[in-house]
Amino acid sequence: MGLNKPLLFALSDAPTGQRNLITDVAGVTVGHKTIVTDRLQTGVTVIKPCQDNIFREKMPAAAHVINGFGKSTGLVQIEELGTIETPLVLTNTLSVGTATTALVKRMLAENPEIGLTTGSVNPIVMECNDSSINHIRDLGVTEEDVNEAFAAASSEFAEGGVGAGTGMRCYELKGGIGSASRKIKIDDQTFTMGALVMSNFGLSTDLNIYGRAIGKKIVDNKDSKEKGSIITIIATDIPFNSRQLKRIAKRSSIGITRSGSFSGNGSGEITLAFSTANRISHFPEHELSSIQAITDDKIDRYFRITVDIVNEAILSSLAHGKTTPDRDGKPLLGLKDALAQLGNDQDALALRNELGL
Amino acid sequence: MGLNKPLLFALSDAPTGQRNLITDVAGVTVGHKTIVTDRLQTGVTVIKPCQDNIFREKMPAAAHVINGFGKSTGLVQIEELGTIETPLVLTNTLSVGTATTALVKRMLAENPEIGLTTGSVNPIVMECNDSSINHIRDLGVTEEDVNEAFAAASSEFAEGGVGAGTGMRCYELKGGIGSASRKIKIDDQTFTMGALVMSNFGLSTDLNIYGRAIGKKIVDNKDSKEKGSIITIIATDIPFNSRQLKRIAKRSSIGITRSGSFSGNGSGEITLAFSTANRISHFPEHELSSIQAITDDKIDRYFRITVDIVNEAILSSLAHGKTTPDRDGKPLLGLKDALAQLGNDQDALALRNELGL
Amino acid sequence: MGLNKPLLFALSDAPTGQRNLITDVAGVTVGHKTIVTDRLQTGVTVIKPCQDNIFREKMPAAAHVINGFGKSTGLVQIEELGTIETPLVLTNTLSVGTATTALVKRMLAENPEIGLTTGSVNPIVMECNDSSINHIRDLGVTEEDVNEAFAAASSEFAEGGVGAGTGMRCYELKGGIGSASRKIKIDDQTFTMGALVMSNFGLSTDLNIYGRAIGKKIVDNKDSKEKGSIITIIATDIPFNSRQLKRIAKRSSIGITRSGSFSGNGSGEITLAFSTANRISHFPEHELSSIQAITDDKIDRYFRITVDIVNEAILSSLAHGKTTPDRDGKPLLGLKDALAQLGNDQDALALRNELGL
Amino acid sequence: MGLNKPLLFALSDAPTGQRNLITDVAGVTVGHKTIVTDRLQTGVTVIKPCQDNIFREKMPAAAHVINGFGKSTGLVQIEELGTIETPLVLTNTLSVGTATTALVKRMLAENPEIGLTTGSVNPIVMECNDSSINHIRDLGVTEEDVNEAFAAASSEFAEGGVGAGTGMRCYELKGGIGSASRKIKIDDQTFTMGALVMSNFGLSTDLNIYGRAIGKKIVDNKDSKEKGSIITIIATDIPFNSRQLKRIAKRSSIGITRSGSFSGNGSGEITLAFSTANRISHFPEHELSSIQAITDDKIDRYFRITVDIVNEAILSSLAHGKTTPDRDGKPLLGLKDALAQLGNDQDALALRNELGL
Repeated sequence: MGLNKPLLFALSDAPTGQRNLITDVAGVTVGHKTIVTDRLQTGVTVIKPCQDNIFREKMPAAAHVINGFGKSTGLVQIEELGTIETPLVLTNTLSVGTATTALVKRMLAENPEIGLTTGSVNPIVMECNDSSINHIRDLGVTEEDVNEAFAAASSEFAEGGVGAGTGMRCYELKGGIGSASRKIKIDDQTFTMGALVMSNFGLSTDLNIYGRAIGKKIVDNKDSKEKGSIITIIATDIPFNSRQLKRIAKRSSIGITRSGSFSGNGSGEITLAFSTANRISHFPEHELSSIQAITDDKIDRYFRITVDIVNEAILSSLAHGKTTPDRDGKPLLGLKDALAQLGNDQDALALRNELGL
Repeated sequence: MGLNKPLLFALSDAPTGQRNLITDVAGVTVGHKTIVTDRLQTGVTVIKPCQDNIFREKMPAAAHVINGFGKSTGLVQIEELGTIETPLVLTNTLSVGTATTALVKRMLAENPEIGLTTGSVNPIVMECNDSSINHIRDLGVTEEDVNEAFAAASSEFAEGGVGAGTGMRCYELKGGIGSASRKIKIDDQTFTMGALVMSNFGLSTDLNIYGRAIGKKIVDNKDSKEKGSIITIIATDIPFNSRQLKRIAKRSSIGITRSGSFSGNGSGEITLAFSTANRISHFPEHELSSIQAITDDKIDRYFRITVDIVNEAILSSLAHGKTTPDRDGKPLLGLKDALAQLGNDQDALALRNELGL
Repeated sequence: MGLNKPLLFALSDAPTGQRNLITDVAGVTVGHKTIVTDRLQTGVTVIKPCQDNIFREKMPAAAHVINGFGKSTGLVQIEELGTIETPLVLTNTLSVGTATTALVKRMLAENPEIGLTTGSVNPIVMECNDSSINHIRDLGVTEEDVNEAFAAASSEFAEGGVGAGTGMRCYELKGGIGSASRKIKIDDQTFTMGALVMSNFGLSTDLNIYGRAIGKKIVDNKDSKEKGSIITIIATDIPFNSRQLKRIAKRSSIGITRSGSFSGNGSGEITLAFSTANRISHFPEHELSSIQAITDDKIDRYFRITVDIVNEAILSSLAHGKTTPDRDGKPLLGLKDALAQLGNDQDALALRNELGL
Repeated sequence: MGLNKPLLFALSDAPTGQRNLITDVAGVTVGHKTIVTDRLQTGVTVIKPCQDNIFREKMPAAAHVINGFGKSTGLVQIEELGTIETPLVLTNTLSVGTATTALVKRMLAENPEIGLTTGSVNPIVMECNDSSINHIRDLGVTEEDVNEAFAAASSEFAEGGVGAGTGMRCYELKGGIGSASRKIKIDDQTFTMGALVMSNFGLSTDLNIYGRAIGKKIVDNKDSKEKGSIITIIATDIPFNSRQLKRIAKRSSIGITRSGSFSGNGSGEITLAFSTANRISHFPEHELSSIQAITDDKIDRYFRITVDIVNEAILSSLAHGKTTPDRDGKPLLGLKDALAQLGNDQDALALRNELGL
């Protein structure tokens, strides 16, 4: 449900969608599988871009690599063809192989022609490294976990340390899944843009919310080196083509760094944007067709929304993060607890109010 | 001389260079030619990366296009070969042709072998659109102006509305040239990184300095559409290769957007980074050689500095900007005057103190 | 008129257009200005993509850099926006500045709003280095020459050593301008693809035509190092978007290397492809619109044509090249004369027949 | 052992390495696991770039995507950091997930610090679609198969339909693994370049060997649509940096298309080049170091070799391909058998002689 408070320093005054979630874009659903054992704190999150068969009716898409210290798969083909043809699966970095296989099996089951009368399928799996909290070497995610995340896909979904976000850490606080959305009128029709992030980046010393350098106050034992990442998904029903979606995806980095980070060397930062308009048929009847297009002339409006929803989604991932023991059993603070520990600190009090914590 | 006050929310605690200018990098000089007539407010700024022959001993370099609504030349070859072989010339967008010819003639004069016993030369000219202030259709820059900018090149140079920055506008205030630098120790040697910007981007409504949304307060008649740009030059004597310089250049966008903008559609944002170490000979005696290299392992330190010096250079361009009549004779406020007009507004007072205005 | 003989080893059986020239694409015209004096052998070639105002109604386009040892301008904005908004000007490498200024002035004259009520314009000038034949250091091209090339623009145009091709050398034979076209039916409509090259690349030792390694036979005094380049323009009325045009442009390199070269270090190889369909308004009335689209599903047909027309255009540039004195007064052979000199050599006789020489 | 005959139309006269295989580059070994059952004809091929720990001492590398209809993993990080840190695994397209997991487990076993005291690892798995021959939907590759391919790694290895090449088809003939190498002197030291391909691309109608359009003669039942791909690996001990390796990798496409193809829409064509010189430490003691470098000045020599070894490796994959039943039990001809079937056809006889078949 995103933040339940207005975003400060917003670039756009577009209103939030009904749920303030990426699922406000019609057809998009999100499902989590959260895995917590004595050694594991990890999981899987799936984003289903539509409820019908995405392999047969693909979607325009683009990915932008902000910093390529990452292991996401499927991006090469998106760059070439400007489409996605599978749902998106998020998980921890060492489980990409397992998630890929699970996603492939699912696509094979739904499309008996793959590998027989038509070619292959391009599975998209994106990742962050949750090894601060999770015993990632255990490879704790199974194919069944991926299936369960798919089974849980819904318009309503939890944020914070759930699904693939279970083990994620952001600015040395509890991070994970966050989301936000906006509605906008174009030539008298209403459209929606939504973002979902898996936040796992940043050092506490750099955290800056709403012009308050709060990070320097709230965490003692600071890391010297970033080992995190952030995956951002942007969905919309505006009929952008892949070139425009790439431009949109690029603006996500501005939303990300608004909280203070600088895209560190070790931070794999990758954004994927897709449009649910103008589906592209795998077996087209005709070569030529008529599609909807949108000019770049007023694209600034969508750039502004992009920065806002990515910024808000990250803050929402922090706002929903609950204090959790890390891999060594030490508490990794949620932002709410961290602010509470600061007592009557003026910045902390202000932020608790501004973020609704 | 950059800002004469500490940068707030800095990512690095590296000390400023001697002048807090890009020319703190040994060998780098900057020259301006400012052109002001009743119709013209434009000019030329040159950055000379060295005092010897750069064509014969090239420098590692990389350019990053943040938003490609721009007309800079020479970037194709930089991407392929990872080098620059001419000084860098900045001017207004419609004068790129003239500046290119002037730069070519200069290179021909210095290198009698070009076009005879060796091939061509790759002139680098970068630009912003100063048509808010300047009658740009007059094509007011001459080849002689470029030569005069070269003749003026020095370790000391002015900031604000000078040289190519004469007609530039930033956040609907007077923009132009700004610069900053930092020193850093690596394995017991001291190195320097410097930035120079030509700032011409942003809408006033978005201007945010040090967590204060000051832009919404200081300008009445706001534009609806960005027509600006920003060119950023980063110089260093750290022996980065072109791949690393590209990574450095990418971080400039974080420094740029820290002041509130979002890389609008019409904003041509291009950054060029070069290293004065590891010169590359045009006529090498041997194919193999030994060069200095630096690992990516601690590159975060340089990313942090990059964000800071670009952020500071932009603020410096604003801090040095003086109120100037625009093309229609209306005053385009300098930041100092704009803040002064706000009287006892708390944010304005704080910023005047924090920026030394 | 391209080759007047069938292309051997063709990848497509699509028929040639009426003229077998790029101007078979409706609206496209080409004009040359040839400059020959005692010191100069150079010139200008312009490709006008349409007869109406291209700035106000832009065209989808993409550029692909095969090897970036080149100085073409305007590519940054094409990559970002996927459009061209000026005609294309070809000239020698050191005259890019002059040609840019001439093109800017032309655009200003046709569009009084540029620099006043709207922003800038992105001039596209592409180049090769003709210094083997031309005294390029003389900067022999004037703005007036560019204007004369525009004035000469027509559906009919010469090939070989004319216009910007006047001083070009290809495989150490006389090169220059070449062109070819094909017609193709899509869903019962007829469309056209055309190519124009400015050929200036390759060492004679590598020249291979129709499976005959003829180059090793025909030139004595071989260079050791490539200093050439090739510019390729592809025009079509098929409604490709910029992503697809980029894919098309990439296939040009296959057409280029079919004659034996390997894209040498010093060979600036750049291809620009544009579509005359789906014009993009500079001042759009509405953000949303309906456009024609074509699936990638059968794009192989257009890839095949691309390789063929680029291959044929290069052969045509050679076939039309006449023996010319180089900068030192030594004859630079045209292919026809070079083959004739080989007398009864079997490969030479076969090629004379196959190429109609 | 590559071809055992001289390459015709060669661009370089550099001599072949001892084995004429990629393993002529010191330290490089290759291992196959071939999987043949009644339903499966697939496998795994691993390329080990060194015999010591590549994660701790990484190698400079670059990948080039010729046509991105492919599912290879690990390329994002190579682009950012210019290094590889795992061996390279080749397999069929739907088994990438399994191979990724197997490779990750191997890296974890060898590097107990991954996921604990250091971050993640970037597994590189590359693929083609062998569904013409293999029941690919069975996902017939297991983690154990990957391990067995590693166990088999050696300086000597088979070519043709073995390992990951078992089910591959090239120009509608039996394709698979092929390799070649060359030696070259640089400043009096001897270096080696080697290529390995997994060939799975091309339609028979396009096959052209040594200027003979043989493909049109040798296969009846032609496909209308390419569903193949080609993976190319280039290894060398020349101290190229990642930018130069990218330039090298780009030339592979010329070697590929020399046999007649045009990089069809459905052909995933990806090339990875690495250098065994200038290892990059995961835990560097110092930031600064001294490394070997090589100028681009004579890089044409290496471009020429690249085209030749890729061209030869593809021909070698065909020359080693044996007639094999496809998925429907129909014989997929090896080139040798296909040429033999042509009897006294002059081109066939000539090619049998020229290729040693």
